[in-house]
Amino acid sequence: MVKIVGIAGSLRAGSHSRQALQLAVQRVEALGAEVELLDLRSLQLPFCDGGDDYPAYPDVERLQETVKQADGLLLATPEYHGSLSGVMKNALDLMSFEHLAGKVVGLISVLGGQSNSNALNDMRVILRWVHAWVIPEQIAIGQAWNAFDTEGKLLDEKLSQRFDQLAQSLVENTERLRK
Amino acid sequence: MVKIVGIAGSLRAGSHSRQALQLAVQRVEALGAEVELLDLRSLQLPFCDGGDDYPAYPDVERLQETVKQADGLLLATPEYHGSLSGVMKNALDLMSFEHLAGKVVGLISVLGGQSNSNALNDMRVILRWVHAWVIPEQIAIGQAWNAFDTEGKLLDEKLSQRFDQLAQSLVENTERLRK
Amino acid sequence: MVKIVGIAGSLRAGSHSRQALQLAVQRVEALGAEVELLDLRSLQLPFCDGGDDYPAYPDVERLQETVKQADGLLLATPEYHGSLSGVMKNALDLMSFEHLAGKVVGLISVLGGQSNSNALNDMRVILRWVHAWVIPEQIAIGQAWNAFDTEGKLLDEKLSQRFDQLAQSLVENTERLRK
Amino acid sequence: MVKIVGIAGSLRAGSHSRQALQLAVQRVEALGAEVELLDLRSLQLPFCDGGDDYPAYPDVERLQETVKQADGLLLATPEYHGSLSGVMKNALDLMSFEHLAGKVVGLISVLGGQSNSNALNDMRVILRWVHAWVIPEQIAIGQAWNAFDTEGKLLDEKLSQRFDQLAQSLVENTERLRK
Repeated sequence: MVKIVGIAGSLRAGSHSRQALQLAVQRVEALGAEVELLDLRSLQLPFCDGGDDYPAYPDVERLQETVKQADGLLLATPEYHGSLSGVMKNALDLMSFEHLAGKVVGLISVLGGQSNSNALNDMRVILRWVHAWVIPEQIAIGQAWNAFDTEGKLLDEKLSQRFDQLAQSLVENTERLRK
Repeated sequence: MVKIVGIAGSLRAGSHSRQALQLAVQRVEALGAEVELLDLRSLQLPFCDGGDDYPAYPDVERLQETVKQADGLLLATPEYHGSLSGVMKNALDLMSFEHLAGKVVGLISVLGGQSNSNALNDMRVILRWVHAWVIPEQIAIGQAWNAFDTEGKLLDEKLSQRFDQLAQSLVENTERLRK
Repeated sequence: MVKIVGIAGSLRAGSHSRQALQLAVQRVEALGAEVELLDLRSLQLPFCDGGDDYPAYPDVERLQETVKQADGLLLATPEYHGSLSGVMKNALDLMSFEHLAGKVVGLISVLGGQSNSNALNDMRVILRWVHAWVIPEQIAIGQAWNAFDTEGKLLDEKLSQRFDQLAQSLVENTERLRK
Repeated sequence: MVKIVGIAGSLRAGSHSRQALQLAVQRVEALGAEVELLDLRSLQLPFCDGGDDYPAYPDVERLQETVKQADGLLLATPEYHGSLSGVMKNALDLMSFEHLAGKVVGLISVLGGQSNSNALNDMRVILRWVHAWVIPEQIAIGQAWNAFDTEGKLLDEKLSQRFDQLAQSLVENTERLRK
């Protein structure tokens, strides 16, 4: 069974990144994968200082080990200032090759304004740096305040289908690529 | 007189980013500019949640106001995982157009391994997003553990000259571009 | 008087890049700048082989000298495969520091699908490489087939205002930055 | 058997991109894959005008069909002005999803100066745009004029090992990912 870890890069209550992540997680689970969500709001993480040890913050090891034992990742970030959130980058900084190399990753970004793929592009390069595999399918949700209904479902059917494709590709290709 | 704020994106003791920033600051001051350094190790900053108000963290407003009243910025970041540090991105996330638009910015990155310009490229696009001006001159220091002598001076004369050029361009073009 | 050279990166008849460039040119001229358009359809340019001399192609020198004598550039490219067109990149490859350094540049991209800023980001980094100044204002036109009326004017008033701002910034900051 | 197409993005006689491509090809063949080289110097290709049909240039269809029938690609480009060559981008522009989607791709760049990964990053995003898979292993060769011996072998043993790893990953993961 494929094991996926989901992480959203927003700390905001009612975050659209978490909503989007949730939709992807449902689809990935429906395809038979096991998903564990890590919530950066409840984890106590420090700012990364470039070191490996954070004895005062046991959640760093929890983050690292949970990711290390997974086969793949679902990462959803708000796009802040034309890139991923500092919160998400810091969480990635707290991990290294040992935890991230070889993972198969699906990416989602969420924007308040017009759609754009800057955060996705930056994350693609960042994850390659630690030798993860980022799948070609990716999703940017523009004007996210207008994308979901009151039950958290996507209003745009085509966008919903792209979530299906992202989930399908993530599960299928994680099976192919994991060692 | 040109007012520049310097920020280093590393929290590590003995950080090469701060060393590099210091060298640029000296040159900028020698050209008659006034420089204020903001040290992210001593500022108490929260992770950005996408909101504007952080009443429990008065240093957010200090960061914002100091940058707002400057004409230009000197930003030095370690390159972590092929991009700027999460610490630096988070500090930028805590500011907005109001504080950053129109600032003239010089960029430096510092790497443990081979030189590369990923962090510089990402910062260039991020700063454009908030309508800052990033000067063409930029510096990436590869194998930074080997770049400085015991007094913190650069061992490579050509690299030292690039710091001169960065400082010269920053001061000169801040004078031209500020309103 | 500010001298601007305009280049569109599409060879297609009825190209939206040329339409968009034309709109920017009109605004730049209305602000008192002198504009020369270089049409890559009528110039006979070779593929760049990394060399400096193309004796069989006198238009290479025409391109180089026209740009060299300008103060600034307006570049409009279609976004092909998530980046600038090969046609536009090749034209830039045929020039070097000598022709491009110090120029002040305004960027426009045109897309068939949803708006995105990949081509703009890549051009921003490319032009920095040759030490040009790219202004913060930039324009990406999504679904360009639907953006213009039959007379070539923009249907979206806000987009039209962004052209005003691009032109204003280009002329004003070229005056400030040229030596 | 895995079928790989190799393309170098330089037209220069004695190009280091072709030298580097050749070294990767040898390793890929030694692993049992079949490689076909497409030489952009001998193909007669037009500048892409955004259209699909180039009846005057039968080599466009040859390029498209050769790539379409392959499982994977090896692409080697010189880095010009901080990005891939216009020659390489134009060759990619002449192909579309139909030819490139699902291909597994290994990337190499070659630079006259200091190493950098701009061309590699841009190609990674471009190839994702057409839903190709770019493997995490990639190679940038800085100061390429100094990298090869007179027989075309790499002087740096560690760099040579990275070619081994690139070839190994390309062949192994093409087997896993092709449908």
